Amino acid sequence: MSDCLFCQIVDGDVASHRILETDTVVAFLDARPVFKGHTLVLPRRHIATLTDLPDELLPELFGAARTVAGAVRDGLGAQGSFVALNNVVSQSVPHLHVHVVPRTKGDGLRGFFWPRTRYAAGEAESYAAKVRAALP
Amino acid sequence: MSDCLFCQIVDGDVASHRILETDTVVAFLDARPVFKGHTLVLPRRHIATLTDLPDELLPELFGAARTVAGAVRDGLGAQGSFVALNNVVSQSVPHLHVHVVPRTKGDGLRGFFWPRTRYAAGEAESYAAKVRAALP
Repeated sequence: MSDCLFCQIVDGDVASHRILETDTVVAFLDARPVFKGHTLVLPRRHIATLTDLPDELLPELFGAARTVAGAVRDGLGAQGSFVALNNVVSQSVPHLHVHVVPRTKGDGLRGFFWPRTRYAAGEAESYAAKVRAALP
Repeated sequence: MSDCLFCQIVDGDVASHRILETDTVVAFLDARPVFKGHTLVLPRRHIATLTDLPDELLPELFGAARTVAGAVRDGLGAQGSFVALNNVVSQSVPHLHVHVVPRTKGDGLRGFFWPRTRYAAGEAESYAAKVRAALP
């Protein structure tokens, strides 16, 4: 049996509440949801992070995430969704997984995107240059 | 000129610090970053949410997000990244955009994924069934 919890779930060695599965992707309920219906969408293959994801799995993984985003909204009477993935930092299981969380106005999800910071004069261009220099 | 701020940025009517652009996708620095280097990746076309994204743009949008996730990590000496999109709720601009935020251990990004809740006995299966029933 794999050491990876999510490989064990994909293989059926650990039980889960399946939402969908295809030849390459599996989606199941997160056992400890942010909001009930919170689903994880992942490649069957043990791929660690987004930057490790091969081209051929991009449309399959994110197509499934798109499908699940619609289904948690419509199936649970939500208004929208939060779709997120952590790479390395805050990534609890090192098997790439996309969180799809149903969202409703006033649901109390913390504003994790605050507080924001500001760039000093000229600083944004310096940051942009560093990121551009690291593009393939 | 479009009423949409992100269409204005895509069209060059509003300035931005560009990270990359392709025929279909543009990436630029978020003006109010969570961490400096925080980049937004979006389709040029005004598409509101993930569930509105057509198949042909899936690999282009998320392929660009993958590229930017590697570039913010490598270009800024980060360890990983946080990649997220809000659909409808908490979506500040109704033009689909993928946040790519560099992450470093101990950077203090709030644990927005806590507290988690729990399912009562039998409840998870009921939620899974509702979501599955809403799949196309």
